[in-house]
Amino acid sequence: MAPVADVDAMRRAVALAARGLGSTSPNPVVGCVVLDASGHEVGTGYHERAGNPHAEVHALRAAGVLARGGTAYVTLEPCNHTGRTGPCAQALIEAGIARVVYAVADPDPRATGGADTLRAAGVRVEGGLLADEAEAGNAAWLTSVRLGRPHVRWKYAATLDGRVAAADGTSRWITSPESRADVHRLRAEADAVVVGSGTARADDPHLAVRGVDGAVQPLRVVVDTGATAVRPGARVLDDAAPTLVAVADDATVDHLAGTDTVRLPRAAGGRGLSVPALLAALHERGVRSVLLEGGPTLAGAFAAEGAVDEVVGYLAPVLLGAGPAVLGDAGIATIADALRLSVTDTTRIGPDLRVTARPRPTTKET
Amino acid sequence: MAPVADVDAMRRAVALAARGLGSTSPNPVVGCVVLDASGHEVGTGYHERAGNPHAEVHALRAAGVLARGGTAYVTLEPCNHTGRTGPCAQALIEAGIARVVYAVADPDPRATGGADTLRAAGVRVEGGLLADEAEAGNAAWLTSVRLGRPHVRWKYAATLDGRVAAADGTSRWITSPESRADVHRLRAEADAVVVGSGTARADDPHLAVRGVDGAVQPLRVVVDTGATAVRPGARVLDDAAPTLVAVADDATVDHLAGTDTVRLPRAAGGRGLSVPALLAALHERGVRSVLLEGGPTLAGAFAAEGAVDEVVGYLAPVLLGAGPAVLGDAGIATIADALRLSVTDTTRIGPDLRVTARPRPTTKET
Repeated sequence: MAPVADVDAMRRAVALAARGLGSTSPNPVVGCVVLDASGHEVGTGYHERAGNPHAEVHALRAAGVLARGGTAYVTLEPCNHTGRTGPCAQALIEAGIARVVYAVADPDPRATGGADTLRAAGVRVEGGLLADEAEAGNAAWLTSVRLGRPHVRWKYAATLDGRVAAADGTSRWITSPESRADVHRLRAEADAVVVGSGTARADDPHLAVRGVDGAVQPLRVVVDTGATAVRPGARVLDDAAPTLVAVADDATVDHLAGTDTVRLPRAAGGRGLSVPALLAALHERGVRSVLLEGGPTLAGAFAAEGAVDEVVGYLAPVLLGAGPAVLGDAGIATIADALRLSVTDTTRIGPDLRVTARPRPTTKET
Repeated sequence: MAPVADVDAMRRAVALAARGLGSTSPNPVVGCVVLDASGHEVGTGYHERAGNPHAEVHALRAAGVLARGGTAYVTLEPCNHTGRTGPCAQALIEAGIARVVYAVADPDPRATGGADTLRAAGVRVEGGLLADEAEAGNAAWLTSVRLGRPHVRWKYAATLDGRVAAADGTSRWITSPESRADVHRLRAEADAVVVGSGTARADDPHLAVRGVDGAVQPLRVVVDTGATAVRPGARVLDDAAPTLVAVADDATVDHLAGTDTVRLPRAAGGRGLSVPALLAALHERGVRSVLLEGGPTLAGAFAAEGAVDEVVGYLAPVLLGAGPAVLGDAGIATIADALRLSVTDTTRIGPDLRVTARPRPTTKET
């Protein structure tokens, strides 16, 4: 068991890291707390956005000479490479830090090695403290490093009986204003918000973040395979946030002059675009986290590709008995092949219920 | 604000009442706590089953002479009529009780007037303490008295995307063993468990209560309009609990010789039986609470008739993307006509989520 003071300091660092969600890509979120030699907090910091100083640098600047002989708590192993900012391992050594405690080892091959550098300079280094909490806070970035594609969070809003609209297609509003405000928070945490042509056509959505202080607007992405859904004047084409329209390589996009478009291969044997190709294109553009906002067809395509890393469902206490289901064909024919998740959180949001879940490792029931 | 001692005593009475759920019909559940003149608890009781003594009688027997000058806390206004047991108002007077506090006034025209009788005998009477909690505990019985039909609790088990089975019809198991055990508790609380012909045909369900100590078996009811789903040898026909097969008045039931059947009119213009006629037939048989266990078609018919008083959904963290939806046609075509509920409870049951909700008074969104 780690000493209480260590756990407390690291927990503050994890909370600090979360402040960077949505604005640090392609970098991770990182928080740092520095205690002096007698255990008093003398500096804190977090990584605010790519190109700005890392968390450790902020915290060391705040601590000044008081860092000498102290301990730095960092949510991620201090980096060892010189990118747009200097290596943090070196900065910690120069500040005279005697001990570094980090939560999660850096999986990025370009940045790893910070712990070794610190040890070689005589700094005591311990890894793994509150690793689970720090991993959860950095899930998007860690997924993107490990899988080489953005982390995908699928958000949906549905009735208790799993409908996203009534039989006649009307859907305003199934969930409450409180739930819709919460979705803007999710958008602010994401690098990109993705919808399909069905949603674009039916709802003419805006997809930008509203009502979240200091939010960095995500890239708005419409998967418009046939280039028929996004028309000039669509709300998603305004200048509130950048927009990308993904179309099939054989689509005609003359009507989208002036709009950023990307041509992608169609899905093998299916409708729509190749999901892996779409995610690769987004990854290339620095997108590390995607908020997938449906609809059912696109969500089904992502699920079929195993490209849903987290599910956030807003369940309204409403029954319809008819209307489109929240998730379309995901290539699952029988119960043994069901996509099984683990619930990680349930929260009441106004009158609605928000359920968060993550896929479980595949284990077929017998 | 009622004194803390009053609230505490009534809360214990409400908890005692709940022990009778599922075994008192056609009577309500009732709990009673007697404090002596100095405020010490000297007797408790609850109504265990129809024909047995009422809660007050149990509590007064336990208190004996210590009841004299004391206070009786009863979850329902003491009855004033002589049924299979004597009137409780008279029993309280004879025991020398000085004050009676009850939660909910008796809406049953045959039994009301107890408070007046007590007052006429010089007993101080106060009503309404913890009325909401006591009403919730007696929801089934109160609904049945007010509406003249059984209270209907619709239970379903579905995936997060609202499916009750996969595309090929397989459904064992969507929810966990913990959820399935919890359903047995719901069955034990109900006077009757109702399924439709689709469920009878697909699952050959047993519908009796297992694993609940002291449970009174509910009446098992299969709505088998055409008398084609329940065949000799069906599990529901064993002797674990009584069974009733409801069929259309023109159905042939020769193959169900020895089975209790009831002939009912078909629904006006629809498939299946008239839901109001079914509920009236059950009410006549003393059924005050129904656990409706689906499937989608029957649940839709109940919802269309406004005959769902409570919804208990077991949501498994599973995605299917195809397969039958949990609720079938309920006559709702557009979002403004959606059946809107209020969530009254959410509880994690093993890996699943149990959501309890009740219909809201109709208010169209504008």
